[in-house]
Amino acid sequence: MAAIIDLNSDLGESFGAWKMGMDEEVMNHISSSNIACGWHGGDAEVMLRTVRAAKVRNVAVGAHPGYPDLLGFGRRNMSCTPNELYAYTIYQVGALLGICASEGVEMQHVKPHGAMYNQAAKDPKLASAITRAVKSLSGGLILMGLAGSAFEEAAVEQGVPFASEAFADRGYMADGSLVPRSQPGAFIHDPDEAAVRILKLVREGTVETPDGQTLKLKAHTICMHGDNPSAVKMAEVVKCTLEKNGVSIKNLRVILS
Amino acid sequence: MAAIIDLNSDLGESFGAWKMGMDEEVMNHISSSNIACGWHGGDAEVMLRTVRAAKVRNVAVGAHPGYPDLLGFGRRNMSCTPNELYAYTIYQVGALLGICASEGVEMQHVKPHGAMYNQAAKDPKLASAITRAVKSLSGGLILMGLAGSAFEEAAVEQGVPFASEAFADRGYMADGSLVPRSQPGAFIHDPDEAAVRILKLVREGTVETPDGQTLKLKAHTICMHGDNPSAVKMAEVVKCTLEKNGVSIKNLRVILS
Amino acid sequence: MAAIIDLNSDLGESFGAWKMGMDEEVMNHISSSNIACGWHGGDAEVMLRTVRAAKVRNVAVGAHPGYPDLLGFGRRNMSCTPNELYAYTIYQVGALLGICASEGVEMQHVKPHGAMYNQAAKDPKLASAITRAVKSLSGGLILMGLAGSAFEEAAVEQGVPFASEAFADRGYMADGSLVPRSQPGAFIHDPDEAAVRILKLVREGTVETPDGQTLKLKAHTICMHGDNPSAVKMAEVVKCTLEKNGVSIKNLRVILS
Amino acid sequence: MAAIIDLNSDLGESFGAWKMGMDEEVMNHISSSNIACGWHGGDAEVMLRTVRAAKVRNVAVGAHPGYPDLLGFGRRNMSCTPNELYAYTIYQVGALLGICASEGVEMQHVKPHGAMYNQAAKDPKLASAITRAVKSLSGGLILMGLAGSAFEEAAVEQGVPFASEAFADRGYMADGSLVPRSQPGAFIHDPDEAAVRILKLVREGTVETPDGQTLKLKAHTICMHGDNPSAVKMAEVVKCTLEKNGVSIKNLRVILS
Repeated sequence: MAAIIDLNSDLGESFGAWKMGMDEEVMNHISSSNIACGWHGGDAEVMLRTVRAAKVRNVAVGAHPGYPDLLGFGRRNMSCTPNELYAYTIYQVGALLGICASEGVEMQHVKPHGAMYNQAAKDPKLASAITRAVKSLSGGLILMGLAGSAFEEAAVEQGVPFASEAFADRGYMADGSLVPRSQPGAFIHDPDEAAVRILKLVREGTVETPDGQTLKLKAHTICMHGDNPSAVKMAEVVKCTLEKNGVSIKNLRVILS
Repeated sequence: MAAIIDLNSDLGESFGAWKMGMDEEVMNHISSSNIACGWHGGDAEVMLRTVRAAKVRNVAVGAHPGYPDLLGFGRRNMSCTPNELYAYTIYQVGALLGICASEGVEMQHVKPHGAMYNQAAKDPKLASAITRAVKSLSGGLILMGLAGSAFEEAAVEQGVPFASEAFADRGYMADGSLVPRSQPGAFIHDPDEAAVRILKLVREGTVETPDGQTLKLKAHTICMHGDNPSAVKMAEVVKCTLEKNGVSIKNLRVILS
Repeated sequence: MAAIIDLNSDLGESFGAWKMGMDEEVMNHISSSNIACGWHGGDAEVMLRTVRAAKVRNVAVGAHPGYPDLLGFGRRNMSCTPNELYAYTIYQVGALLGICASEGVEMQHVKPHGAMYNQAAKDPKLASAITRAVKSLSGGLILMGLAGSAFEEAAVEQGVPFASEAFADRGYMADGSLVPRSQPGAFIHDPDEAAVRILKLVREGTVETPDGQTLKLKAHTICMHGDNPSAVKMAEVVKCTLEKNGVSIKNLRVILS
Repeated sequence: MAAIIDLNSDLGESFGAWKMGMDEEVMNHISSSNIACGWHGGDAEVMLRTVRAAKVRNVAVGAHPGYPDLLGFGRRNMSCTPNELYAYTIYQVGALLGICASEGVEMQHVKPHGAMYNQAAKDPKLASAITRAVKSLSGGLILMGLAGSAFEEAAVEQGVPFASEAFADRGYMADGSLVPRSQPGAFIHDPDEAAVRILKLVREGTVETPDGQTLKLKAHTICMHGDNPSAVKMAEVVKCTLEKNGVSIKNLRVILS
């Protein structure tokens, strides 16, 4: 069986007069896009523009809902209730479903953003509420989340297709958690090193920890960044390295089918 | 042929900790609801609650998108471009479509709110953009707007089902426009008077102007209010009077079919 | 020495088209107002209206800054940094200082709202940041906060005048904390009971706990509510009872002088 | 008498995670800063950072209030009432006054932003409301606005110090209005040409129109931009040219004294 992997990136995070990210550049190196839905970033016109850009590049479209915290870019923990997150997710994903419908694009997946992603990954009640929201919108939407997190449990329990995500530029501890940002080995800055790690992850399902152990990690998709030229460069190098080594870059519908 | 009419009301305008309107009370006297989509009023949880309340009462659900002006309740004129309104409409209607999907409710119509309604009613470019947005989301969504306005022209031109709206509590000039709020005859305060006017409008397609002329007016739906007890009372009296006189209250799907 | 106490209430929480609270009614029974600054509630026009209403009733004006969470009414915990809270406090208090200046009113105090109040009361870094913000705006502004909290420590350390707050309608544990909302004795609903408790608190500096112990509690000001008719009634009864029993209701400038 | 002029620029327009403008670079070439107040751009932390940056460079600080339209960057016309603009101006200027107080900086002026500037420049009621707001905050704040506009009239009438503004990169019609953006001569792109025009304006009080006429124009301050490297370059060239030719760059307190 040929190795395949999805490459995803958070996009459409510009807002009004403010530009953020190199969306069009990074889109050339990924197979799935996570598009902000106007709460932590993005706005209706940016969403429309980003869906159109994904469509012409044959990049799959996903919703990237976040907390109602534009000022904090959805990165600050907030104590929302499961009922709030259920409604917030439906609202934001629904808005992007509308944009997709208007462009004749079928949405592929939902990936929560920032603090919503991090808090729910550890909190079964929040993860369950978000998963129920995804399920309520359609039987086919895929939930994308941290491998081995509360998202995965909730998705399995509710019968929602789940895509495990790993990070190209982050180090992992032996227990599968990310190396804290304050510790050595938290970040991979060299594109070639990142590419080699991802290649190994795809082929062997393992990643090496900073202290030399081997962690088993199952990932359907790898998160790439597109904030700046070096992030885009890393995406390009990872994609090229994978393809040169016989790995197919395919979106999640292909991978989970 | 038996006379039929739709009765609609703007609902779901509470926001966060702030309550507005007597939604549940007025819902007992109408057939179609226009639900705020979170920009000028409403929020994700309020939308969910309102769709559920409409569902159990068999009231048809419509989206009520507005300007991005929460502080001004969407009532202030803003110079938005057609492209902006196109995206804003899709976003807001999409969000409510998501809420509807999660509850297994099919959305019936879209009625723009406040200044968006008033400005687009007179501006063919804005009306056309909103109509295109409605059309882009589905072939079946009905556009509700002022009888004889730019909305009607755009809907006819684009082949979008259109529902003409008249107002139960407003007087009309001989040219079909509403009596300005500063002039005598602008408002009908007496529920019985309103009921008799609406009955005549439904049966004969006419309404009497303040100076005693007879205006021809075609309406598929009558706008009722639910802000306060006397508005709810008027809705109740209008509905009862119509039914006692053999008029059927039906939603727009029935009326336009 | 005659007993004196300040009675305060959170006011100016209406927003745009949404009314909240019975501000003018409760203002007749208090000596200090905490006016929302537009982030969790209130807006520029509401602030102006509320300052004018306080001015004509000779009620002292305080700022009531909150988290940037209008949707959640500032009641949800958020992980803001001390630097963020420092800037947020200055911004909001500054805005109300502007409103006060325009009306020739001198601001008396600052009381953080909701989750900002609760989180900072337990977190010395957050309390310190808010206190520094208050101090940076003037040497005279009083900080109002929970008795015995991190606010009090920060105020003492920084030399900022501090007013201890107690709650008329809440029960206290033997350690000085509020009885959790889920436990018996959390709330005092009877106005007369509340009045008697407050009278004892003012005269003897003690309050009885649900299990019959006597807690020493020092308060310069008592928080009253004005959300609904029964809250206003409680404020009225408390004020009358205190005055009948020889307690003077005075604002914080008098009490702290 | 030696020729003097003020050079101003709109700054502090970043918001949350979104950066806009090259504030620190352009600050080296101006004498007055117009700092966004969080409604159309800017936020509390950006305001604090920008005031600090102005302080260390000895650049005078002004408030740049705008419409409540973050999504539209305050550039869209809105139908606000004079009472609304009065309160909106006090709120925003008050917030920046708070930031200034916390840094020991005295605010110099107020310049409305975008559509608020343009609409009020032509509408005496709006200009009067904004001017009253400025006056209500202090006797000393200078109002900056378009030369010969409704702002100037309102300021003269109310006894508020007024600074006339001209634009370095815009062409003027013979009647003193700006050349419409769609016409030839609307923009001056060449820094040297701009510098020569400003030098002539400062020395002779005239500017040449596209059709070769000479317009008399009185300006206390010239608006420079700092959005991008070429705008910063123009600011640098204008400043150098003026200084080489014996013109002093001074802030408005010096110029209006």
